[in-house]
Amino acid sequence: MLSFACDYLEGAHPLILKRLSETNLVQEPGYGFDSHCENAKRLIREACGCPDADVFFLVGGTQTNATVIDSMLRGYEGVVAAQTGHIAVHESGAIEFGGHKVLTVPGHEGKIHTDELRALLEAFHGDSAKDHMVFPGMVYISFPTEYGTVYSKKELVDIHNVCREYSIPLFVDGARLGYGLTSPACDITLKELATLCDVFYIGGTKVGALCGEAVVFPRGNAPAHFFTTVKQHGALLAKGRVLGIQFETLFTDNLYFDIASNAVSLAMKVRNIFETRGIPMYINSPTNQQFPILTDGQIAALEGKVQFETWEKLPDGRTVTRFATSWATTQKQIDSLESLL
Amino acid sequence: MLSFACDYLEGAHPLILKRLSETNLVQEPGYGFDSHCENAKRLIREACGCPDADVFFLVGGTQTNATVIDSMLRGYEGVVAAQTGHIAVHESGAIEFGGHKVLTVPGHEGKIHTDELRALLEAFHGDSAKDHMVFPGMVYISFPTEYGTVYSKKELVDIHNVCREYSIPLFVDGARLGYGLTSPACDITLKELATLCDVFYIGGTKVGALCGEAVVFPRGNAPAHFFTTVKQHGALLAKGRVLGIQFETLFTDNLYFDIASNAVSLAMKVRNIFETRGIPMYINSPTNQQFPILTDGQIAALEGKVQFETWEKLPDGRTVTRFATSWATTQKQIDSLESLL
Amino acid sequence: MLSFACDYLEGAHPLILKRLSETNLVQEPGYGFDSHCENAKRLIREACGCPDADVFFLVGGTQTNATVIDSMLRGYEGVVAAQTGHIAVHESGAIEFGGHKVLTVPGHEGKIHTDELRALLEAFHGDSAKDHMVFPGMVYISFPTEYGTVYSKKELVDIHNVCREYSIPLFVDGARLGYGLTSPACDITLKELATLCDVFYIGGTKVGALCGEAVVFPRGNAPAHFFTTVKQHGALLAKGRVLGIQFETLFTDNLYFDIASNAVSLAMKVRNIFETRGIPMYINSPTNQQFPILTDGQIAALEGKVQFETWEKLPDGRTVTRFATSWATTQKQIDSLESLL
Amino acid sequence: MLSFACDYLEGAHPLILKRLSETNLVQEPGYGFDSHCENAKRLIREACGCPDADVFFLVGGTQTNATVIDSMLRGYEGVVAAQTGHIAVHESGAIEFGGHKVLTVPGHEGKIHTDELRALLEAFHGDSAKDHMVFPGMVYISFPTEYGTVYSKKELVDIHNVCREYSIPLFVDGARLGYGLTSPACDITLKELATLCDVFYIGGTKVGALCGEAVVFPRGNAPAHFFTTVKQHGALLAKGRVLGIQFETLFTDNLYFDIASNAVSLAMKVRNIFETRGIPMYINSPTNQQFPILTDGQIAALEGKVQFETWEKLPDGRTVTRFATSWATTQKQIDSLESLL
Repeated sequence: MLSFACDYLEGAHPLILKRLSETNLVQEPGYGFDSHCENAKRLIREACGCPDADVFFLVGGTQTNATVIDSMLRGYEGVVAAQTGHIAVHESGAIEFGGHKVLTVPGHEGKIHTDELRALLEAFHGDSAKDHMVFPGMVYISFPTEYGTVYSKKELVDIHNVCREYSIPLFVDGARLGYGLTSPACDITLKELATLCDVFYIGGTKVGALCGEAVVFPRGNAPAHFFTTVKQHGALLAKGRVLGIQFETLFTDNLYFDIASNAVSLAMKVRNIFETRGIPMYINSPTNQQFPILTDGQIAALEGKVQFETWEKLPDGRTVTRFATSWATTQKQIDSLESLL
Repeated sequence: MLSFACDYLEGAHPLILKRLSETNLVQEPGYGFDSHCENAKRLIREACGCPDADVFFLVGGTQTNATVIDSMLRGYEGVVAAQTGHIAVHESGAIEFGGHKVLTVPGHEGKIHTDELRALLEAFHGDSAKDHMVFPGMVYISFPTEYGTVYSKKELVDIHNVCREYSIPLFVDGARLGYGLTSPACDITLKELATLCDVFYIGGTKVGALCGEAVVFPRGNAPAHFFTTVKQHGALLAKGRVLGIQFETLFTDNLYFDIASNAVSLAMKVRNIFETRGIPMYINSPTNQQFPILTDGQIAALEGKVQFETWEKLPDGRTVTRFATSWATTQKQIDSLESLL
Repeated sequence: MLSFACDYLEGAHPLILKRLSETNLVQEPGYGFDSHCENAKRLIREACGCPDADVFFLVGGTQTNATVIDSMLRGYEGVVAAQTGHIAVHESGAIEFGGHKVLTVPGHEGKIHTDELRALLEAFHGDSAKDHMVFPGMVYISFPTEYGTVYSKKELVDIHNVCREYSIPLFVDGARLGYGLTSPACDITLKELATLCDVFYIGGTKVGALCGEAVVFPRGNAPAHFFTTVKQHGALLAKGRVLGIQFETLFTDNLYFDIASNAVSLAMKVRNIFETRGIPMYINSPTNQQFPILTDGQIAALEGKVQFETWEKLPDGRTVTRFATSWATTQKQIDSLESLL
Repeated sequence: MLSFACDYLEGAHPLILKRLSETNLVQEPGYGFDSHCENAKRLIREACGCPDADVFFLVGGTQTNATVIDSMLRGYEGVVAAQTGHIAVHESGAIEFGGHKVLTVPGHEGKIHTDELRALLEAFHGDSAKDHMVFPGMVYISFPTEYGTVYSKKELVDIHNVCREYSIPLFVDGARLGYGLTSPACDITLKELATLCDVFYIGGTKVGALCGEAVVFPRGNAPAHFFTTVKQHGALLAKGRVLGIQFETLFTDNLYFDIASNAVSLAMKVRNIFETRGIPMYINSPTNQQFPILTDGQIAALEGKVQFETWEKLPDGRTVTRFATSWATTQKQIDSLESLL
């Protein structure tokens, strides 16, 4: 059965498996000290335009969020995120497990608004009881967001400036970074993004890798002993080569962006297929996740033929659904979807 | 250069890469709900003789230790381990990060002694101040140990009985389980081991997999919502298939045990090579790790030709070293080592 | 200068100091095993109509909230509270420090609404992604609330029923319990309250004691080894007698309720003083905290003469203030306030 | 019945109760911002010879240890202590609750030896696997120790120098500080102690107060937002005055040292009483705790007449006991003990 249920339905880009096979029996040191990690770090520094960047490879997104946030906050600090942010909802309390509160501002199609962020910070610092409260010590945003939307350059600059003003770092969760940066709606480059935040990660799991997220501290600003914090969080992969080889491959010949771009193009076709049939979108998402609003009848008609996620029930009885493309989606699958509808 | 530095120097057993490739573009659900995980769980239940076992796949050893221990302890409890146990020394405080103390008993070539375990438990329960102390809520042992030694069946039965007596679970860290069970010194089977403990894991990372540890609760005794605890620890792999396929392959046609057995046979040859040259072993290890005691001259002579770990400096100036074989070690490498010495 | 800034401006009820002096040099065992704690527990069990209750004495409110909540939740669970709840805002993240998320529902003058509580629980249990989320494992309410309001018996029964339905405990923060139970608006007794929740505490710090909160598990349902959890949280007072003597005194001859009742009566006069001068209240609080809305001019006129807290700036420029009475407030102070206005 | 069971058997020095009564109805702000806390801080700064010291008042010892240690360590760091140290044994894992491991060196009658401390630090920093281990980030000692012994000035200077060399802070747990500083065996003053460590506390609970410990950061070196960390740990007392008044009283007219000195003198008499009867001491303790070794017959003879703690059973069947004097002990009680023996 055809599936658009998520963007981690397949294994890895074939070139990755090929490289894993080619290098398989070469002996390499563990824990990220292998030649592939070194090379992948170099390629990522180049792609980000950050020659001094500290780069670390972790395995998954929740793990990366928890480790990065815990490493950058002091014990009395929390992290500010959208109410709909992944860390606020779908990580089983991994941030709180590390002792930190997630302070929330409203999510607007997944995005935080600068004025609401500023209001939270102003209110906190103007509150006479602030010493009894959790200090907002970091801002977390996802790019693209959980709703597929992307921040404009202006929005990012504004958030960046608020963070500067309050001297707190900005962390960008890039679990789907490729799909954001290659979106037609995106007006920012990876290099620009790197200048606007203090730490971000380049998602591999959802963009062609078996697993893996590349954490980038753009100005060599990794917290002291971040390696040990990674280990403490159970996030250190013994065979670091597995991550190194994957990012080395993804950042060779523009592969990461090419496959992301293809997924976004196909997502635009998915959207068009729905819209031309009069099926509206819940959100105007310019990335690989599309959110058609389906009637129960439409859902029933698709059952057993194509998989997708149901997202939310609307008051009028219709259902917001999610159809995701990925690096692995083919034009043929899009054609099949079209013929089903 | 030849290396015996550790047992995670190469990628994965070629059959695993083959299976990853063959299944690569088949769409499967995430988070361990794919057909490969299901099949791997079935194969593991069979191998363990535990039809009711709960099986979960995690990525790495420290992560698995921290997640399992945290899930089974109440807040006021700690875990008892050997002073030399991995969780007590080399996990950057991952257990304490979860709020739990590691209570230690002496390690004897990596093993805990039943009488010392019993003494700790008796002393605790007989202490009038015990309510001001950390409750010993679980026992952790590694099989084989960090020093390559294996517990005898009798030793395991004794530890098991002490745990029963005090109603606390026994957890077996099997990061190198294959090398233990296929050791000529081992008098216990996987099925027997499963009856003697409350949770254990079958190490994949060090025994042929790219990554992965299979946690087994032998009698369907996983703590409630263990899945959520795994997520909370950042230990849930989105593409669970990557772990499922690997364990499916390892537990088909006895592969896991065959490759482990081969590594142990070659380790016995490594040991013989040293001993026939009058180089003594620090520990009588019957598994894949061997600990020759080398002089500075011997170390200098090997430099640049073969890699190994230095373990400990002895008072007489000699050095305990570690030479590890693995599923990937070949007879040719052993021959090379022999000709070097 | 006159102060209505809070309800912990003075020391303790004189009878408490008298009893501390009378018993001062009698030798008593530590950690709550003294005769006064025993006696106080007996008196509290009687007052609550709970002969089997487990009673523990802790020092302060935040400490009590953190200890009780941590002791009753499993690692993957969080606690549901009003967005304005003390644990959600003013405890510096003490709950998260213990690893637990505070899940919030809207606060309505400090109270949670049963339908919104039920909606949160229904939404969670109906969410296909719930295993990736924090389990709502407990409900926290304050009585009276941070805004001085009290739940009606019907409201409490409804919340109790929702908790029963979802098999999660209900915890009542009674830091100001006396002021709630003696409010003219209160239609519930202490004995009834005890039947409607799974754990609550009787606040001493704000109702006549130097410090101290009495935690009551009404049906002998304290979690195993709660004493050790108290110690682990740094909440065990060596000289438990200090807490025992205070609660013994407060629960002798109805002192606790008499002094609370007096504070509430005087608070009604404070309110009347403002209202008869045309100064509106922000909230219709029937307990010891009153929230007059003052203009900048009115605030300026009071400056240097009477202390109170500023709570919130309204859009129209006026300020919500808080005037609190306490067990120590006198009619003379009320008269002084009146003459000032 | 006579009791020497511990040094917190009575309430508080009568002058403290007197001052609590005298100030009882004066309105003061909460959370340590009252005039008594201010005054007590001034008096303590003077006594310590540290005009720039940051001083905070907490309620109890375990709480203070957990709060101070957590505030000064980064997430990947642990604290070094004697195996017999209070934080290592008798705090129910409060340090680990905050996420930090207690790294231990042997305890020698409660003291750590500089050479063993240095060896631990050298071994750690020389270990090629140190990034997989918990960083020793602080040293904890108790003065006097849990066994009543005191460090000499030379020993403290040596420990101080090792800490300087490794750039880690030294924390002195002074739960019984008064009894240490007024011991005839003590060759160091409070002012000298303050120069040799980075943070220490002056124990009130065991030296005349109802409760309370005064934390001193001698050179104004409190961690940023320590107040909030105190609140987060549930260690902030609403009526800070209760602590302020007590330390104000204790540090007026040398009261703290006078009452401690008297307790030590009486302890020396206790010891003499035992020794002149041929009863040996387990440890040569020059402070308020004495450890006679009693036979079962001797213990039986004292039963029902005098209370004391049993500490440890010796291989020869005799029992190490503890007799503690305190600020409240009288010559008459010593006489009674003598006549009993």
